[in-house]
This record gives sequence, structure tokens and C-alpha cells, in this order.
Amino acid sequence: MELSARNKIKGTVKEIKLGDVMAKVAIEIAGGAIINSIITVDSVEDLQLKEGDRVYAIVKSTEVMVGK
Amino acid sequence: MELSARNKIKGTVKEIKLGDVMAKVAIEIAGGAIINSIITVDSVEDLQLKEGDRVYAIVKSTEVMVGK
Amino acid sequence: MELSARNKIKGTVKEIKLGDVMAKVAIEIAGGAIINSIITVDSVEDLQLKEGDRVYAIVKSTEVMVGK
Amino acid sequence: MELSARNKIKGTVKEIKLGDVMAKVAIEIAGGAIINSIITVDSVEDLQLKEGDRVYAIVKSTEVMVGK
Amino acid sequence: MELSARNKIKGTVKEIKLGDVMAKVAIEIAGGAIINSIITVDSVEDLQLKEGDRVYAIVKSTEVMVGK
Amino acid sequence: MELSARNKIKGTVKEIKLGDVMAKVAIEIAGGAIINSIITVDSVEDLQLKEGDRVYAIVKSTEVMVGK
Repeated sequence: MELSARNKIKGTVKEIKLGDVMAKVAIEIAGGAIINSIITVDSVEDLQLKEGDRVYAIVKSTEVMVGK
Repeated sequence: MELSARNKIKGTVKEIKLGDVMAKVAIEIAGGAIINSIITVDSVEDLQLKEGDRVYAIVKSTEVMVGK
Repeated sequence: MELSARNKIKGTVKEIKLGDVMAKVAIEIAGGAIINSIITVDSVEDLQLKEGDRVYAIVKSTEVMVGK
Repeated sequence: MELSARNKIKGTVKEIKLGDVMAKVAIEIAGGAIINSIITVDSVEDLQLKEGDRVYAIVKSTEVMVGK
Repeated sequence: MELSARNKIKGTVKEIKLGDVMAKVAIEIAGGAIINSIITVDSVEDLQLKEGDRVYAIVKSTEVMVGK
Repeated sequence: MELSARNKIKGTVKEIKLGDVMAKVAIEIAGGAIINSIITVDSVEDLQLKEGDRVYAIVKSTEVMVGK
């Protein structure tokens, strides 16, 4: 399946913090920057996410702000 | 001002496409990936954005999905 | 690629309205309801979307409100 | 009150999972698909949501992606 | 219909700018601050929005950032 | 840093509720209305947010709906 979301940034899962409903997934991308993602615990389990996984951080363009 | 948004990725404006209300801003980040941002034309004007500007792509963590 | 986004609803593209930067895509789902999606014109072109296409409307769970 | 949000999908609450701050609400829509919503625990309490309630899943069009 | 979205701020429509697909609606709230909303042109027409209308700016809590 | 997000509403932190991953921050604005923000616990800690702080509630225009 191809996705309309414009932004797919490759990276590696560095840390997963599981809450009761939501989880934080920290993804290290090229250049060493960290992208944090908040997804459901259900998604972490369905994707069987674990540290070291090669993943994409995906963001719809309308969600990206610009700071200057 | 410090911002709660977790994700600030440094980059360079590569392209700006102005529509009537919304504009697309393409930002090249480390490693050569492009992050597209859709913001208002008003914002482009207020920030006086132009190609070559050093900017940040800013994303709230709750807006980041994970693909695996 | 598997996606963390929880909501993938199958449907058929009923209408595409192209603006200068953004486009509206109307998707008819089971039961006849219409889901409207606003994505970039770039995405419409990259996905080669056209009326009649079988697609998914995809929504991150944190974007879904409840009305009662 | 009429709402600008384009997408209102009727359904039935199938499951509520309460966390400390956020809650997951699973809504079954026509055709049997499930739409998951992440809202605050405060909202669940204010709306007095419970399994079996007839509700609407509401999504702003700019939050809907397309997969093909 | 009651809505799970936590934030409903009363105000008056000060300006509407119609684009081809999206529209900007500027809402003045108590204290004189302006809240800008980007919605579809379809929504502006369905709600028959015009300058001077008493409306609510509605925002899901997960979309609100904090700056300090 | 200047931000593209159109909406910055000044207020005072009235309540912070910390969950395991996410936190709720209630901000009182001019006129007495409350704006609720859901951000990560990490953000609350990094910004050292506490009751009584003068802050901004910041919202991207594409996230604002209109109710009439």
C-alpha cells in the first residue's frame, strides 16, 4: 500500500516507553536527531516494535510546522 | 520561548509553492531527506520564508506514526 | 510496510477536487457514508488517484473525536 | 451546534480502556469495521461513555490520509 | 450532540478568505486575540459562515502545544 | 525562533495532571476560559511546567474547527 503522507523518514528505534494506553517510541534518524512518536500500546504490540528495529517515522504534511 | 513539541529537525528550505490559502514548504534535512510542510500563506509571509533559509521542521509527537 | 495508524477504512474514490496546493478526495465507505480527505495535490498525483479507485481512508487514533 | 468537521461516522461503542490521562474508545461502524479513538479520560467521564452507546466518530478532513 | 473535544472557545468571525479547496476563518475571542482556523470551503458553505457570526473555535486537546 | 503556527494564546497554568507517558495541562486564558493541552510527561519536565506559570497555548491553524 502506498500512502498519501508525504514524510517518511528512515530511522532506528532507540527507546520504547509503554504507558497504560499510549506509548512513546524514540526513533534515531540520519544525522543523529531523535524523532519522538506517541502511538497506542496496541500499535506497539501489533507491530511488535522493539529497540533496534528499522522503521519509518511518518508524518502528514499538514502536521509539520516551520520555525525560523 | 521553549516549545513542548518534541521534534525539531534542522534543515534548509528547498522549495516554496504558494497557493491561495495554503503553501507547501519543502525542507531538506541531514542525510538529504525532504520534509514537506503545509502551512498558511500568511505564515510564509510573516516568517519571510525563502529558498535557502535555515529553518526547523517542527512536529508534535502525537502526530508521528511508525511504519515497519 | 505495516502502519501504526489504527484506522484503515476501505472505500471507493467518489470525487477528487484539485486546488493549487491541496486537494479534496471524497471516499465512499461501506454503508454509503462519505469520508472526506484533504491531502496535497502532489499526493494525488503520486498515487495517481482517480474516481473509482479502491483505497483506504487512514486516520491516526489520536485524531478521532467522539460525539454523543 | 453544527460542526465544520466533515466526517461524522455513526457507530456503537464496543470497548473503553481507561488509562491515567488518556482513554481508548473502540467504535464499531456499519460494515463491522472498528474505529479507534484516543480521547482524554475527562472526556469519557463528561460524555458518560459506556459500551453500547450510539456515538459518532468525528474526524477533521485534514487528518485523513489515503492509502492505495 | 456533545463533543469529546475539550476546547471550545467562543468568538466572532472577523474575516473569511476563500481559496479553491481550503478557507481561512479568523475568529476574535474574549480579550481581543485572534484564532485562525483552516477548514474546507465546503464547510464554510455548509455552515453558511459570514463575518460577524458568533461561533466556537474547537480544538482537540492533543493538538494543543505549550510554549514557555 | 519564530513559529509558523498562527495561534498563540497567552494564559496561566491552572492544573497539571501527570500520567505515565502523557500529561494534561489546563491553561486559563483571558476571559476565564480553560484550554486543555495533552503533551508528553517529558515535555512537562523539560519545560519545568508548574501551576501559576505564564505560558502560551499554541495551535496550528489546520487543527482548529469551527462550530456554529
